[in-house]
Amino acid sequence: MNPIACLLIIGNEVLSGRTRDANLQFLATRLGELGIPMREVRVIPDVEETIVATVNEVRRKFDHVFTTGGIGPTHDDITSECVAKAFGVPWAVHEETRALMAADYARRDPPIEMNAARLRMATLPLGAVPIRCAMTTAPGFSMGNVHVMAGVPRIMQSMFEALAPSLQGGVPVVSRAVHAIGVFEGNIAEGLEAIQKRYPALDIGSYPFYRQNAAAPGGVTGFPGGGVALVSKGVSLPDVEAATAEITAMLAGMGATPIQGEPAA
Amino acid sequence: MNPIACLLIIGNEVLSGRTRDANLQFLATRLGELGIPMREVRVIPDVEETIVATVNEVRRKFDHVFTTGGIGPTHDDITSECVAKAFGVPWAVHEETRALMAADYARRDPPIEMNAARLRMATLPLGAVPIRCAMTTAPGFSMGNVHVMAGVPRIMQSMFEALAPSLQGGVPVVSRAVHAIGVFEGNIAEGLEAIQKRYPALDIGSYPFYRQNAAAPGGVTGFPGGGVALVSKGVSLPDVEAATAEITAMLAGMGATPIQGEPAA
Repeated sequence: MNPIACLLIIGNEVLSGRTRDANLQFLATRLGELGIPMREVRVIPDVEETIVATVNEVRRKFDHVFTTGGIGPTHDDITSECVAKAFGVPWAVHEETRALMAADYARRDPPIEMNAARLRMATLPLGAVPIRCAMTTAPGFSMGNVHVMAGVPRIMQSMFEALAPSLQGGVPVVSRAVHAIGVFEGNIAEGLEAIQKRYPALDIGSYPFYRQNAAAPGGVTGFPGGGVALVSKGVSLPDVEAATAEITAMLAGMGATPIQGEPAA
Repeated sequence: MNPIACLLIIGNEVLSGRTRDANLQFLATRLGELGIPMREVRVIPDVEETIVATVNEVRRKFDHVFTTGGIGPTHDDITSECVAKAFGVPWAVHEETRALMAADYARRDPPIEMNAARLRMATLPLGAVPIRCAMTTAPGFSMGNVHVMAGVPRIMQSMFEALAPSLQGGVPVVSRAVHAIGVFEGNIAEGLEAIQKRYPALDIGSYPFYRQNAAAPGGVTGFPGGGVALVSKGVSLPDVEAATAEITAMLAGMGATPIQGEPAA
């Protein structure tokens, strides 16, 4: 069994619609590649009780918990101290981190002051392991199976790639898509369900798409209204390929033109 | 007190990273306008026990629950029957809906068959109120405080706008943003926290932004690396405007150039 992951997106700005999250899709894709499929995502506000309770709930349910957001220097950045509360440990200045940040700030021109706000970014739950990345000396950290990262996508991605080699992964999840232009889901539902039943370990999904001028690989273009994407996913590539072949045969048997791969936008 | 909302995004395709959700931001924005702020979002897989348990947990915690995804005709579309299970009611053909769908399908050229897969889209939890929209005769529905909508964004939006007039709303949430180019969060954290403390009913957030060529309204352009957006949000416009004025004065006192409104991309 692969280990499974949960993502907590922490931030009022996502819940209010002001900011469109850009981290879910990146992490879902990368974790799938590492064989740690993401099984749940929660977006929660910058509210202490909510963060503490949610961290404690999901860290017991999932092998890995990743959080994004709330580790900057301002008053609404409370993720780090909430993780300390969740684990019941002190939230204390991490001396090695403080020294690294102070040295970085002293090198700037003009130098940046290590004030109280910035010192909060060097304050970690006792026992946490810093996640250091090339983008900033203010670190993320792992506390047990909870991996705390920045919300800004380019910093989050840098932190994740620094962390990834130390994650205990599983068998990579692979997928194959077949697209059919001008096919209704209602006409293939029965045949698709039969294929799913023959491959119970796979996750076979049907996703209609709508585009003004849908274009597909292979030069099939211009079907207004789109079609359907049929995706087989799992840890066994032979099973994924066998199911994909059955889906392709089903579509061809209906007179449709199945196209493997993703259609152009 | 405003009523509060939770969104459940149901679908393996979002958790795997294949599909980027496009509904969260739309619903967060529209619900804020209606005075029903979104307080939590969960992305969960197409797994019956998970959907049933999650629906039952959140419908008790929130005034309104919105779901997207999983109401099509294929085997992985199980949201509707799961909501019936969550409420402990039968999942039964809704005769009025069946007749509307059959009449729609009969009018097509060529006519569409009302087969078993499509009949599932006319099958609703007993007692549910259909959400009918202009995009499709296959409806969403409200069951108690749970509002079930399609996952395809243009259909979801049409269903939401059909539903919106019947929602018991609250005081609209308003917000004002001030942007400052070239300002570090670490330099304003202390002043910003003091302003937050003077306006405890507001939600004041600080969001750094990074752009290759950040441009701001008012002709301030070209600061590589960006700056910070300071957002005041709440149900009292006078408070929001007063806090925004204090933030603007704080920035001006630091020699920064505060810019009201959103910077250009």
